[in-house]
Amino acid sequence: MLTFIGLGLYDERSITIEGRDALRGADRAFMERYTSRLSGADRGTLEAEHGIEIETRDRAGVERDPEAILSAAEGGNVAFLTAGDPMISTTHVDLRLRAADRGIGTRIVHGTTAEAAASSLTGLQNYRFGPATTLPFPYAHRADGLPASVTNTLDDNRDRGLHTLVYLDIKVGEDPAGEEADREEYMTADVAAGLLSAEYGDVLGVVVARAGSPEPRVEAAALSELADREFGDPLHLLVVPGDLHQLESEALRTFADAPTEPTEPV
Amino acid sequence: MLTFIGLGLYDERSITIEGRDALRGADRAFMERYTSRLSGADRGTLEAEHGIEIETRDRAGVERDPEAILSAAEGGNVAFLTAGDPMISTTHVDLRLRAADRGIGTRIVHGTTAEAAASSLTGLQNYRFGPATTLPFPYAHRADGLPASVTNTLDDNRDRGLHTLVYLDIKVGEDPAGEEADREEYMTADVAAGLLSAEYGDVLGVVVARAGSPEPRVEAAALSELADREFGDPLHLLVVPGDLHQLESEALRTFADAPTEPTEPV
Repeated sequence: MLTFIGLGLYDERSITIEGRDALRGADRAFMERYTSRLSGADRGTLEAEHGIEIETRDRAGVERDPEAILSAAEGGNVAFLTAGDPMISTTHVDLRLRAADRGIGTRIVHGTTAEAAASSLTGLQNYRFGPATTLPFPYAHRADGLPASVTNTLDDNRDRGLHTLVYLDIKVGEDPAGEEADREEYMTADVAAGLLSAEYGDVLGVVVARAGSPEPRVEAAALSELADREFGDPLHLLVVPGDLHQLESEALRTFADAPTEPTEPV
Repeated sequence: MLTFIGLGLYDERSITIEGRDALRGADRAFMERYTSRLSGADRGTLEAEHGIEIETRDRAGVERDPEAILSAAEGGNVAFLTAGDPMISTTHVDLRLRAADRGIGTRIVHGTTAEAAASSLTGLQNYRFGPATTLPFPYAHRADGLPASVTNTLDDNRDRGLHTLVYLDIKVGEDPAGEEADREEYMTADVAAGLLSAEYGDVLGVVVARAGSPEPRVEAAALSELADREFGDPLHLLVVPGDLHQLESEALRTFADAPTEPTEPV
C-alpha cells in the first residue's frame, strides 16, 4: 500500500491527525523535497515528532527511479510525504499511476494548500480565483521578459475580473550528481514583484509570506512598490487580484494594509 | 483572540495537529453548520475527541447576531470552527472584519479543502481549474433552467479548456425560527448531474463522493449517465473537466473508471 500524505503548509504540526496516524503506522516513509517544502521544520524534527525514519528523495529519485518506493509499497505500508497536498504536483499523479499499474493500492491523505491559504489570509474570495501560474527564475526561463505562461494566465484572468495566485519558483538539489545537490533557492516575493513590474508595475499585488505559520505576513501595494520591500524567510506567494468586491477591498485594507485608492470596489 | 479553525474534510481526525491544539487551548468554542459540515463526525464526537464543549451556530446566529462570539473573544480565547478551510466562505471574512473593528486579534488555522481534494482524487491538475461555481437547488434558484452563474462559469472555463469544480447546494436549518430548524438537505451528485444534463448531457463529468474519507468514490462518465447512478452518503462534488492532458486522461481511466473515448487527450 502506498499512502500519499500531505504535510500541510508550515511545520510538523501542519499535518492532519489522520495523516500523522497513517505516517506512524507506515513501515517505511519517503519524503520528496523538490515541489515544495516545510519552512518551519526539517526532516529531523518530523522524525522526532512522529517516531519514524524518513528517507528524502530528489526529483530524479522519484521520477526516474521510483523502483525503491514501489517495491517497498508492494511488500508493506509505505508513506510518501509532500508539503501541502500530496497531489497538487503532476509528478505525483504519475507515481500513483505506476503504483496502480503494478497492482499496489494507493490512498491519499489531504494536506492544507497554499491556494486555500492565499484566499483565506487575504480575504480574496476563493470562487473568484482563475487558474494559478508559476513564475520561474529568469535563468530557468532562459529568455528575455516574462514567460507567456505567466502573462497569458494573468491577462486572461484579469480580462475576466479574476484573481491570480502566482507560485514562486523553487529549485532544490536539481542537479544531484553535480556540485549543486544541496542548493536550495526560493524566489522571494520582492523579486517576483520586480519581475512582474516590467509589465504590471501599477497593478495591485498582495504578498503572502509564510502562509500557515503562526505569524504570516500579508501586504498589498502596487507591484512596483512591493518590489522594494522585504518579506523575511520563505516561502512566499504573490496574488494579483482582479476586480474587487467591497468585502474584499475592506479585507485588503484591514489585513494587508492596502492603500485606499487601488482597492476601491468595482 | 478569535481563532478561525478549519476542521478539514471528513471527521474528527481531519483537523491539523495545530488546529487540535488551538481548539484544546480555547476558553470557548463555536461551530457553524451552514456553509459545510463534517459528514463523518457529529458535534458529540468532536467534543469527546477534543475535550471541549462546542456551541453550534446557524447562519443567523453568526451573521445577524455575532455579539456572543465577539464579546467572548474580547475576554478570552475563542475558537470558531468550520468544516474545510475556515475562510472559504465569504461570511467568515465578515466576522473577521467585525472582530478587527473591535480590536480583537484574529488568527487562521487552515484546513484541507474540497478544492484540493477534487484535484487530488481525480488526477485533474490543480493549475488547470478555472473558478468554481455552486449549483443551487431548483427551489432556491426560483427560476426555470440552470442559473446563469453556473452556465457562465462552465462556459467560460470550457472556452479556455479549464476544469470546473461544481459545489453542490447545502441547506441546513435555514429557518431556525420555523419548523425547519433541523432540516438538513444535501444535493447529491446524481441530482446535480441530472440538472446539468439539460444543457451538458454529453459532457464528461467526474463525481467525487466523500472526499477526505477513508474510501472516497470517484466516477467519470457523461453527465447524463451519472444522473442515473447512486453515490451513497454525502458530501458529493462534481467536476466538469475541460481539455484533458494525457496524464489526466490516464488518471481518469485508472482511478475513475472513465470510458476511453470521451477522455482522449487533446
